[in-house]
Amino acid sequence: MAKFNVKNPSGFPEFAPAAEQKRQEWLQIISTAFKSFGFIPVTTPVVEREENLLGKGGNAKEMYVLKRLLDEEGDKSHSGNALRFDQTVPLALYVARHQNEITFPFKRSVIGPVFRGERAQKGRFRQFDQCDIDVIGMEKLSLLNDAQIPAIIINVFKALQIGAFRVRINNRKILTGLFKSLGIEETKMKATLDIVDDLEKLPREKILSAFTENGFNQAQVDKILEFVSAESTDFEALKTLCDHDEYLEGVTELQTVIEALEAMKVDKNFYQIDTSIARGLDYYTGTVYETTLTDHPEFGSVCSGGRYEDLASIFTGKKMPGVGISIGLTRLFSQCLDAGLVKPDRSSPTEVLLLAADEVALPNLLSLGSDIRAAGIVAENYLETKKLAKQFDYADKLGIPYVVVMGEQELSKNIVQLKDMKTGEKDEMAFDEVLNVLATKGL
Amino acid sequence: MAKFNVKNPSGFPEFAPAAEQKRQEWLQIISTAFKSFGFIPVTTPVVEREENLLGKGGNAKEMYVLKRLLDEEGDKSHSGNALRFDQTVPLALYVARHQNEITFPFKRSVIGPVFRGERAQKGRFRQFDQCDIDVIGMEKLSLLNDAQIPAIIINVFKALQIGAFRVRINNRKILTGLFKSLGIEETKMKATLDIVDDLEKLPREKILSAFTENGFNQAQVDKILEFVSAESTDFEALKTLCDHDEYLEGVTELQTVIEALEAMKVDKNFYQIDTSIARGLDYYTGTVYETTLTDHPEFGSVCSGGRYEDLASIFTGKKMPGVGISIGLTRLFSQCLDAGLVKPDRSSPTEVLLLAADEVALPNLLSLGSDIRAAGIVAENYLETKKLAKQFDYADKLGIPYVVVMGEQELSKNIVQLKDMKTGEKDEMAFDEVLNVLATKGL
Repeated sequence: MAKFNVKNPSGFPEFAPAAEQKRQEWLQIISTAFKSFGFIPVTTPVVEREENLLGKGGNAKEMYVLKRLLDEEGDKSHSGNALRFDQTVPLALYVARHQNEITFPFKRSVIGPVFRGERAQKGRFRQFDQCDIDVIGMEKLSLLNDAQIPAIIINVFKALQIGAFRVRINNRKILTGLFKSLGIEETKMKATLDIVDDLEKLPREKILSAFTENGFNQAQVDKILEFVSAESTDFEALKTLCDHDEYLEGVTELQTVIEALEAMKVDKNFYQIDTSIARGLDYYTGTVYETTLTDHPEFGSVCSGGRYEDLASIFTGKKMPGVGISIGLTRLFSQCLDAGLVKPDRSSPTEVLLLAADEVALPNLLSLGSDIRAAGIVAENYLETKKLAKQFDYADKLGIPYVVVMGEQELSKNIVQLKDMKTGEKDEMAFDEVLNVLATKGL
Repeated sequence: MAKFNVKNPSGFPEFAPAAEQKRQEWLQIISTAFKSFGFIPVTTPVVEREENLLGKGGNAKEMYVLKRLLDEEGDKSHSGNALRFDQTVPLALYVARHQNEITFPFKRSVIGPVFRGERAQKGRFRQFDQCDIDVIGMEKLSLLNDAQIPAIIINVFKALQIGAFRVRINNRKILTGLFKSLGIEETKMKATLDIVDDLEKLPREKILSAFTENGFNQAQVDKILEFVSAESTDFEALKTLCDHDEYLEGVTELQTVIEALEAMKVDKNFYQIDTSIARGLDYYTGTVYETTLTDHPEFGSVCSGGRYEDLASIFTGKKMPGVGISIGLTRLFSQCLDAGLVKPDRSSPTEVLLLAADEVALPNLLSLGSDIRAAGIVAENYLETKKLAKQFDYADKLGIPYVVVMGEQELSKNIVQLKDMKTGEKDEMAFDEVLNVLATKGL
């Protein structure tokens, strides 16, 4: 027998049944939250033209291209394609392809795999799921959309139940306006934002030397550090700190976003203004977001995004501003598993398992199983010929909460036994009463 | 500006928003039906080791392998991987990897893309979604699982509402037993099954010449054609037609399956015995299924599968029998779109759209939007500054069923207008009454 290495390829993860069951619950939570705000789930192919991916910021060193194993037919249509590395470029291409079928503002959500040929290491995957939402406007897009985004993030993270978290909100214009007022040139804007972005991650001497390397003077450095450490959240106070137009525009935009969040009655414990947030990508032009787990700052930002002015005019020929966020699901889920924030407690969606103590009861149990499913409850008949103890083992191992048992005796009396697998409690009831009793259990 | 070809690569389909919305509904229907029987959704990476895919029947000519666009780092871990061509080999590998974490029988479902480097043509895709369920036993697996499969298929196709359909069920042993009783050698079994499989697709002369080419005598051909055209569905009658052990075993197995379907109270209009069904793959050893749309026989089988004795002992070293089916979602969905069986009528999941006739009403509407969502209804605030007619256009184009409108006047009276977009009917109600009224609309 040939010996196969069955391990999954390095960097292409999968999860054992119990963890996978939890992951499926996460997918359900995230997609439900996205949908509840009217986002349209859109799936695009995982394969796009190489030139389009490269044209819009794809890193050639990390890009996987497709080849046919045997390409003897000379069919050129198989070459020139690559696996997508994010969900934003495919969104831009989708919008370009379907401009005339799309009603703007276009609210699209997506949950699906992206691929990066990175060096495999812990927490770095070559295939991982990204969960994105974006609102795309034609020519313009109301700032109120920037307020809706944190409301959605908060719904998601409340539902995931992985502990305290905080969405931190800023407006990039506040920082760039401030930098400009300090005489920092346009060409150094990106470098300055990057340094500010690293403030929490790097030791102070590294930050200072980064400033020095970029030729900042002491006054500029002092002013920047003073500003970002002030944790100002009072808009009137913020407005007095700098009078640069772009700075003031940023403060006003931020204020609009926060006021809309208040109108939406979003709990203030879950978000805060943080004027030190920059976000690395030069893509962003206004509102930016970061989300951190309060008890796990080492996870870094678990959900980030922001406002951008140009989705992809190179593909569409039109100016389409947008605002969006992304959750790196595979990474976050793995981190939560490792940190014990997610506790896989069952490896099956089954709520009720039906066991035949004697084969003669099976037809009635098959019929009952159909009835329970028709009532919208996940119900499974155990179909193998095994001793009852072994059948209970199956329920135990999968973490199934309720078990219905029927044997010759029960059949003769037209009753069943119902066992609550958590409490061990047993009930006896008429065959016709099972559905009513399950309803009282909240099923 | 560089000119980009934004078209999706040939054979890698995607759908415009309205069709995509329908496709999402299909995904929901199929995954809910799979789950209701206790199947565990398991996602595996789309990338597997090339040698494993080839080792278990992968067609090298259709296989896509991954290369990094720039591979200057000499990191060998990126090579030797390929895209999966079906969901069965990944299942076998998953079982091999997680044998000790899996409780058998293992009921797994999967919905996800597979890849085949075929010549692109209408109805043939290079990336398409397959929806599979399989039950895998350790060493053995009860025949009752074979009965559950059609019950699930029927639930799916009833819910999809694409017209009348029929699941046709046979047992491969009936055919192979019959062939053996006619003196047909083991080596010709596969060829004979293939000819029978083609009976409905090819003209009679092609069938007859196929028999001749394979060296069958007239008596054998007559007997085979007589049998498969008899449409026998009476088990006692079937048992008299041939006395070969394997044939009789097949009839008994088929009878067990049909009796269990009756016990599950599955509607007989949706399934039938069809002793002419063979299914091409030599993989199958017992029960086989095909599903056809009554009014669209040209679609071919839209859901097929069967019982197999060996999932993949080459990977697991163990005998694991299974039974499963597969729906080629992308193809079926495209066929239904083309045939008008699916009518995309909305391109958004939004049930209630909230419109501000005057900006002053917006904060109240933002608050109301949050309340409606908290009640589990998909609700969206229109956030752009547009005239009311333009806002209604948005609801119209997306097919949103209900619209709430509030302007200065309504605000002063603390009321809103509710419009049913289908009937055009308008209602006026107190702001606090909106949720109650929506509940009466079945939301």
